[in-house]
Amino acid sequence: MISEVHYAQFASLALDCGDTLRDVTVAYESYGSLNRERTNAILILHAFTGDAHAAGIDPEGKPGWWANMIGPAKAFDTDRYFVLCSNILGGCRGTTGPSSINPETGKPYGLRFPVITVRDIVRLQKALVDHLGIPKLLAVAGGSMGGMQALEWVVSYPDMVEACLPIATTARHSAQQIAFNETGRQAIVADPDFNGGDYYDGPPPARGLAVARMVGHITYMSDESMREKFGRRLRNRESLSFGFDIDFEVESYLRYRGSQFVGRFDANSYLYITKAMDYFDLANGAPSLAAALEKVLSRFLVISFTSDWLYPSYQSLEIVNALRSRNHDVTYCELSSSYGHDAFLVDVGEQTGIVSGFLARVAKEAGVSEGKGARA
Amino acid sequence: MISEVHYAQFASLALDCGDTLRDVTVAYESYGSLNRERTNAILILHAFTGDAHAAGIDPEGKPGWWANMIGPAKAFDTDRYFVLCSNILGGCRGTTGPSSINPETGKPYGLRFPVITVRDIVRLQKALVDHLGIPKLLAVAGGSMGGMQALEWVVSYPDMVEACLPIATTARHSAQQIAFNETGRQAIVADPDFNGGDYYDGPPPARGLAVARMVGHITYMSDESMREKFGRRLRNRESLSFGFDIDFEVESYLRYRGSQFVGRFDANSYLYITKAMDYFDLANGAPSLAAALEKVLSRFLVISFTSDWLYPSYQSLEIVNALRSRNHDVTYCELSSSYGHDAFLVDVGEQTGIVSGFLARVAKEAGVSEGKGARA
Repeated sequence: MISEVHYAQFASLALDCGDTLRDVTVAYESYGSLNRERTNAILILHAFTGDAHAAGIDPEGKPGWWANMIGPAKAFDTDRYFVLCSNILGGCRGTTGPSSINPETGKPYGLRFPVITVRDIVRLQKALVDHLGIPKLLAVAGGSMGGMQALEWVVSYPDMVEACLPIATTARHSAQQIAFNETGRQAIVADPDFNGGDYYDGPPPARGLAVARMVGHITYMSDESMREKFGRRLRNRESLSFGFDIDFEVESYLRYRGSQFVGRFDANSYLYITKAMDYFDLANGAPSLAAALEKVLSRFLVISFTSDWLYPSYQSLEIVNALRSRNHDVTYCELSSSYGHDAFLVDVGEQTGIVSGFLARVAKEAGVSEGKGARA
Repeated sequence: MISEVHYAQFASLALDCGDTLRDVTVAYESYGSLNRERTNAILILHAFTGDAHAAGIDPEGKPGWWANMIGPAKAFDTDRYFVLCSNILGGCRGTTGPSSINPETGKPYGLRFPVITVRDIVRLQKALVDHLGIPKLLAVAGGSMGGMQALEWVVSYPDMVEACLPIATTARHSAQQIAFNETGRQAIVADPDFNGGDYYDGPPPARGLAVARMVGHITYMSDESMREKFGRRLRNRESLSFGFDIDFEVESYLRYRGSQFVGRFDANSYLYITKAMDYFDLANGAPSLAAALEKVLSRFLVISFTSDWLYPSYQSLEIVNALRSRNHDVTYCELSSSYGHDAFLVDVGEQTGIVSGFLARVAKEAGVSEGKGARA
């Protein structure tokens, strides 16, 4: 399955901050076929540094970030469903973000890009779904920040979604989650190459961005998975170096991941997207999370992982309990995994059966026919 | 109780790396009186960024970092015991470290300072204890990296210590612990002001050091204590800023702690001391941790805290189980606290009674008379 990126253009997008963004592009991919009734569409929401390439193989041979979950006979079965994924607003993988050209100046936005929210991100996805002529989504699904978008969808557009699958996520960022993001942001702005966000004509703030990514990677793994993967093993040596070069495998891994990230991600996008996560609070303005979820009309499958300490299970339980207090249809699974937050991406054995079973029930109850219809 | 810093000088110190350090200074403080038999001395070992000022009030009015644990009628009762604390080798608070003058060049060592180990740190403490004419310590005690030193003491000098109190610590750094330290080191060396460690004639790598400290602070607290202390409270504002200035209290706290740290700590010491921690593996060379602890002659009180995720209880249990497998006298307490790793410093209610009771038993069994004798 070779994937292909498509682009949609929108003249303007109103934002929570009060500004309006002009000339907005959205990069998206889709897999499978839309049925004749246009009722079998599933919107996949990507996490922080993900992109539209969720499944299949891109022309350069790279598999999608959730290729193990999306495809024929997989959890999101492309023989049955039309699966859609777009790069988020503020990103740097085809959708308008701080590295895009500001139509007013003819130069990249940099820090003149407006601060965006998860609701803004979802508002643009809604425009895309409308543009594709999909009246209602069978499901919205995503892990981590993708789960925040899934939750925002059912609150912002309750009659647009049959089912919501928030995975390894939270209804609001905690102080610790904000703290990790703020550390990453400070690492970036501390880099002199950051230059107030105007670095597109010169070297990017590579060292700061790499440090930010190193912090991130620690939080995505678990103590246990790091012990299993690295332990105290030395890297290409028999004994300690008594120097500041790499001694341990885990040091090598983090440095590699940090430097590799610089080649594929924009530092300003790092700032904007982490800020959107930190601002996220589904209960915002409502007296409680349960009250904010009062009027949703979707069925829910909430999944968390035992060793995920970045988005711990208690945060999923807050969502579940709020939904149950309003008698919504919610299934909750805490899956056993040693992979930490990464589990939703890499440890998908149990997740697959649970998701496919849930989707089959939702599709049946919604009277959805299988794919092989019109193609968007 | 006004504290006073003393200094001891040593002509040379042999190091694990094979080098010998010349003209070594040790800064230390002491509280209480040594008894006539010189048997009531307790050596306190400080954590990563601590110093010799463990108790009392210094001439500038600053209380010691464990003033709530050391003093008359406190856990380490200075009416009964002679309490000693020295700044560690590699530090920047009076003891020889990378910011000290290299006698061979007349300039600060910087990265020409040799890479040191916890065993080197303890070797210098042993020289100080000998210098003070103390034939045997009633106890060695410390939290975090102080606990590593306590463990190293009883393995390196088994007949020098009656009792060992390793608190909130580990017998070896895990991959995750190495990862956090490596991130801090990379933040420092990424700062152009680091200049290969030669920054003593110019500005220090303040931004990198501040980022490193921010990461550290997150690991010292717990998810719960951050939620209790900060939650999602905004800092001096009614609504979100939609900008990259400080929105949340937790951001303000981290930035403040980061910038404050720069004024009191040397970036090169940060590199050397974290490296010593990462190198620490008590079982090094022995077939197992239990084998490494075979010949110790001390009693043990091991303490951990429920919400400490940086040095989790399972690491203390590894020590306890290794000791028990060799029939050593060991008491283990896992104390309930929401303060995370900081608990050993700030949540000392239960810790106080447990430590004072343990020390009283040790002193009694060792036939130690109370203080009021010769003063070192």
